[in-house]
Amino acid sequence: MNSAQLFEEIKKKRSFLCIGLDTDIQKIPRHLLDTSDPIFTFNKEIIDYTHDLAVAYKPNLAFYESLGAEGLVSLDKTVKYIREKCPEMFIIADAKRGDIGNTSSLYARTFFDHFDFDAVTVAPYMGEDSVKPFLTYLDRWVIILALTSNKGAFDFQFLKDEESGNMLFESVLKTSQNWGNTNNIMYVVGATKAEKLEEIRDIIPNHFILVPGVGAQGGDLQEVAKYGMNDQCGLLVNSSRAIIFASDGEDFAQQARTQAEAVQLEMEELLLEAELL
Amino acid sequence: MNSAQLFEEIKKKRSFLCIGLDTDIQKIPRHLLDTSDPIFTFNKEIIDYTHDLAVAYKPNLAFYESLGAEGLVSLDKTVKYIREKCPEMFIIADAKRGDIGNTSSLYARTFFDHFDFDAVTVAPYMGEDSVKPFLTYLDRWVIILALTSNKGAFDFQFLKDEESGNMLFESVLKTSQNWGNTNNIMYVVGATKAEKLEEIRDIIPNHFILVPGVGAQGGDLQEVAKYGMNDQCGLLVNSSRAIIFASDGEDFAQQARTQAEAVQLEMEELLLEAELL
Repeated sequence: MNSAQLFEEIKKKRSFLCIGLDTDIQKIPRHLLDTSDPIFTFNKEIIDYTHDLAVAYKPNLAFYESLGAEGLVSLDKTVKYIREKCPEMFIIADAKRGDIGNTSSLYARTFFDHFDFDAVTVAPYMGEDSVKPFLTYLDRWVIILALTSNKGAFDFQFLKDEESGNMLFESVLKTSQNWGNTNNIMYVVGATKAEKLEEIRDIIPNHFILVPGVGAQGGDLQEVAKYGMNDQCGLLVNSSRAIIFASDGEDFAQQARTQAEAVQLEMEELLLEAELL
Repeated sequence: MNSAQLFEEIKKKRSFLCIGLDTDIQKIPRHLLDTSDPIFTFNKEIIDYTHDLAVAYKPNLAFYESLGAEGLVSLDKTVKYIREKCPEMFIIADAKRGDIGNTSSLYARTFFDHFDFDAVTVAPYMGEDSVKPFLTYLDRWVIILALTSNKGAFDFQFLKDEESGNMLFESVLKTSQNWGNTNNIMYVVGATKAEKLEEIRDIIPNHFILVPGVGAQGGDLQEVAKYGMNDQCGLLVNSSRAIIFASDGEDFAQQARTQAEAVQLEMEELLLEAELL
């Protein structure tokens, strides 16, 4: 999928919602624990009830790996189920990988060949050769951490380079955009840093930005759209816990839908205001 | 295991060798492909032939994840086999993780509880709260990327902070050493940057340093020891491909031993020169 196709999906669904499948075995409804694969059963229900409201799903690998081999089976079934139900869905492996070239090649093989993800999140610390192997796959994406939503973002991401005057996250944006193009690189910018989106848009006017941190982490959707939207929308806004754990009862999927619907409606308004619909 | 115990192992084995179990299914001897679990069979043989020469093993997760759920089963069996064969071995998950706090907690659970690793490598880009969850486990370690051995290290790790005058890798060392102590934090410094070890030792005189890049990546053991060794040795030097893929014949494990023995002998010399034996 390229960026134009992604924008088409956004217009069709009137939504730029990404749902984070951070499926924590300790948080899913208890009645699911009797099923043979509780994680997949939970995800399947969530997908059934929300797939028309979201343009992307983002399983965070940590939740699957914490269950060992079994967790990866659940993940594989989840990705296959999304593809079957909704071939045009954008599926992100939130893995935050990054290693020397030959190792990143293997991670790329894992996420794009073994699993069938459209995109994988990567950490930029190790530089170009740790990211490039992911960019050799047609219509697949890397999503590079630029400015994250957590408190620790202030430890290093704002250090200001003496020579260029750029803060580290700005250096990451400026340098890494030359490694690929707007059809294979996105960036992570946390919703808790929405006011920074304005200057970030000056650096990367045309790239898609994945924005985590709306909902449980306290970011504001209006602010994100105000500063981050471009003429192709250019935003995927992620919500995880606030949607998927809206209820821990038997109606959890219906409640997730109710939450997702509220977000989709707000997004539709914002797309209309921006005259993108 | 704490740093004093690790030093005891180094003295006992007269070695500070870490063997990287980067077990690539495409590179292991063909005759192993007929076994029910070729990856584990390969690792088991390598461990049988080298465990008395090394103080640490470091499986790189990419190689196991690229095989999906099956790969994680091989990894699990490998870690268990090392523990059984050699309870005092230091086992490192080379995973280069790092995510927001609640997600890093899950990764910690994965590597320390589900698997039984002693340490996990982490990327520092997301700062303190992405690393701290790993430090809540007694006698377990994080190994933080400081200065990596690859070409891309020059993209961001040498950017010089305007205010402090520190390069990014120096800021990482100075800031992160306050998150834990010399018994739960190590750092990665690539052997290809051995000349930097002298100034790095000024910043972290007492921390262990994991040095990849000797062998296939071109680093020099003598240089690493000259600039990096402290009075507890303070070094784990990793070699992967040069040892485990020394031969692709039926004698691969014996050939791996021959390579490991040569490195161990060189290390013994260096330990004697430094009067640590």
